Amino acid sequence: MLAGLPVTLRVGVAGLGTVGGGVLRLLRDNAALVAARAGQPIVVTAVSARDRGRDRGVPLDGVRWHEDASALAEDPGVDVVVELIGGSEGPGRALVEASLRAGRPVVTANKALLAVHGAEIAALAERRGVMLGFEAAVAGGIPVIKALREGLAGNRIARVAGILNGTCNYILTTMRESGRDFAGVLGEAQALGYAEADPSFDVDGVDAAHKLAILAALAFGRPVAFEELHVEGIRQVSALDIAFAEELGFRIKLLGIAELGERGVLARVHPCMVARDASLARVEGVFNAVVAEGDFIGRLMLEGRGAGAGPTASAVVSDLVDLARGRVVPVWGVASAALSHSPAAAMADRVGAFYLRLMVRDRPGVIADVAAALRDHEVSVASMLQHGQGPAEHGRAPGEAVAMVLVTHETRERDMAAALGAVAGLEAVLERPALIRIEAG
Amino acid sequence: MLAGLPVTLRVGVAGLGTVGGGVLRLLRDNAALVAARAGQPIVVTAVSARDRGRDRGVPLDGVRWHEDASALAEDPGVDVVVELIGGSEGPGRALVEASLRAGRPVVTANKALLAVHGAEIAALAERRGVMLGFEAAVAGGIPVIKALREGLAGNRIARVAGILNGTCNYILTTMRESGRDFAGVLGEAQALGYAEADPSFDVDGVDAAHKLAILAALAFGRPVAFEELHVEGIRQVSALDIAFAEELGFRIKLLGIAELGERGVLARVHPCMVARDASLARVEGVFNAVVAEGDFIGRLMLEGRGAGAGPTASAVVSDLVDLARGRVVPVWGVASAALSHSPAAAMADRVGAFYLRLMVRDRPGVIADVAAALRDHEVSVASMLQHGQGPAEHGRAPGEAVAMVLVTHETRERDMAAALGAVAGLEAVLERPALIRIEAG
Repeated sequence: MLAGLPVTLRVGVAGLGTVGGGVLRLLRDNAALVAARAGQPIVVTAVSARDRGRDRGVPLDGVRWHEDASALAEDPGVDVVVELIGGSEGPGRALVEASLRAGRPVVTANKALLAVHGAEIAALAERRGVMLGFEAAVAGGIPVIKALREGLAGNRIARVAGILNGTCNYILTTMRESGRDFAGVLGEAQALGYAEADPSFDVDGVDAAHKLAILAALAFGRPVAFEELHVEGIRQVSALDIAFAEELGFRIKLLGIAELGERGVLARVHPCMVARDASLARVEGVFNAVVAEGDFIGRLMLEGRGAGAGPTASAVVSDLVDLARGRVVPVWGVASAALSHSPAAAMADRVGAFYLRLMVRDRPGVIADVAAALRDHEVSVASMLQHGQGPAEHGRAPGEAVAMVLVTHETRERDMAAALGAVAGLEAVLERPALIRIEAG
Repeated sequence: MLAGLPVTLRVGVAGLGTVGGGVLRLLRDNAALVAARAGQPIVVTAVSARDRGRDRGVPLDGVRWHEDASALAEDPGVDVVVELIGGSEGPGRALVEASLRAGRPVVTANKALLAVHGAEIAALAERRGVMLGFEAAVAGGIPVIKALREGLAGNRIARVAGILNGTCNYILTTMRESGRDFAGVLGEAQALGYAEADPSFDVDGVDAAHKLAILAALAFGRPVAFEELHVEGIRQVSALDIAFAEELGFRIKLLGIAELGERGVLARVHPCMVARDASLARVEGVFNAVVAEGDFIGRLMLEGRGAGAGPTASAVVSDLVDLARGRVVPVWGVASAALSHSPAAAMADRVGAFYLRLMVRDRPGVIADVAAALRDHEVSVASMLQHGQGPAEHGRAPGEAVAMVLVTHETRERDMAAALGAVAGLEAVLERPALIRIEAG
């Protein structure tokens, strides 16, 4: 190094898929800008990926290539490791742990790792006094980690809720706009590249749950406990329920919600009915959004692109700039010793309103039977509507299946579950009832 | 100090109005939480305010009282000065400069100071190597400074636009909802405490312009030049134009917009017609919102409370926590030497579509006269509608005044200004024409 030139931050990137390629491009295209904002140039000096031959749109001349990603943890020409391999186990986890153990800072987009092993990874980073950046792990380019951990540092946070999976939001938006059913829209999303060939990670809510676990840990200063989360995906959301939601003034969204109540923190991912004019209801397509409620700031919403090469690379580089500037912060915002031990609240204790849709035989007495079953389990009905096959069709023959939609008053989950069992067992109820929680957006 | 206890960050607060009281309350109510997130307790040890007797809801026992705010810059029991006096000149400015000169970090909510003297204040902070935090200066609790300067550090920013004044947004929202005119709604806002007795700072766009100047400096890494801004307020927005906006599918919003184009940075504040389903159109009442567009992140929106004791205190404390954690960053995101010298673009060169409303005598040939005047100045009309007194009223007598509304194609400002002069001079045009720019939200 020549005297007078600023020291370079040397980056080793593991994983050169979509996001890795985006990081390479960003650090090349915006090199001067990033250097000015970081106070020093940020340069990729080493990489590791499965396929050496693939064209990533950025020449890798002069960049060291490691067959084994974990070699980046020891490469003396690397100051910070960017882990873009992913997965809560395997080589991604091994690289992060090896790097931290070697006292080398890590920037990662690995939500699964942080959701499942966040507490121990954070403790390791703290013991070694090195930075672990993970802005890219949640909601792509949206700087939600920074906002929660630093921007809202003065606030006791009561609730964090978000649209955390763009694939699900795209599918739900398209179902609503086209009136088509889940399977057809999923197939189209797969063809367009918005959904994976194996979509279960997205559509079953696992990806959103990983991100929610991270947000909850930040919001409540509490070790992540992924297995405590209640997780439902969107496979059961039908075109019929989306149409009824419209009629009732709602949108159906897959939300991740973490709330601090008297019984502790309740974190859950499931489809929700959200009032059509609520902030989160209006976030459509592949966009992500997060709402945080703090005791001094009130309600804050952030909305942007939750995935893709550009947004995720933007998040990775923001962590690299923070590192270059020495802006380092404990992983969960507080030292491990200061983490809260508030318990996890049980889903069965949640209280809220429900949308319940039954397909019933259209004969006298059905409403009375359903109402009695609900009453017997302390479920109070706020409103009811009944239609033929769908909201717009009223003509039907007696004895035919008709949809009966009920909106309940505030009800405890365990009571609703018991009532649902009773209702599903009625002779006149022809299909498995559809149940969707009503939530503030 | 006893061994083993963490060092305390000692805060001197100048100005104990609404925001100062909020800061005192926050640091008291959330003391343990803030200490955990900051890594050390943050305690107010000295204050300065005009009225010693006033009850601020927080006891000030044991807190040193300075009659002269500038004494905080020298108080040996103060580690950081929080300046909440305000104003681009006078005691607020004097305190900030004295503190920085003394090598003492400053956290301020003073948007006027940063908008007008930002370049020199930043240079002073840089020379002394101390932090100047101003998250509270723009959009209250919304962590927009942090998002732009740190979260988007990897991006070349093309445009920043926002609803930056809650008073104006409240007035415009209420005018639309009630159909009432500016003066009446302003009076009500004053009675409710949403507008000052002298409202000109808000309704003439000055406050929004101060905030926009700060956002533009951050987004484009460019010294603030407040006098370069084009600023119009909302006094000229009429109930009639709000009704026409609804009919055309727009909402009228006072936006601050800064864009980087071929001719440099253009920064301006004026009422805009925004498509009703655009993000910023849906931000109503006292809420603020900022949209930033970066080359990698795409579009990011932040929405929240832009004023008030709680949100602003939240922003002040986030800066204090950053200081405690050693997260320090150059004022405008880059060192003074790295600031850009991109020129200021002239408003006259802006190109965009316009809404133009004329009150004309209802007689044959008026449309032809107006169309000819526009054509002679290269203004091309995209659509036109004509009504009686308002959008809903069609019946009228010949010769009566009627509203003629035109939406133009993309037009250069200087051409529009010339065309407007010609149109206003037509014999059949009875009032000063109303001109509102159409903008993406």
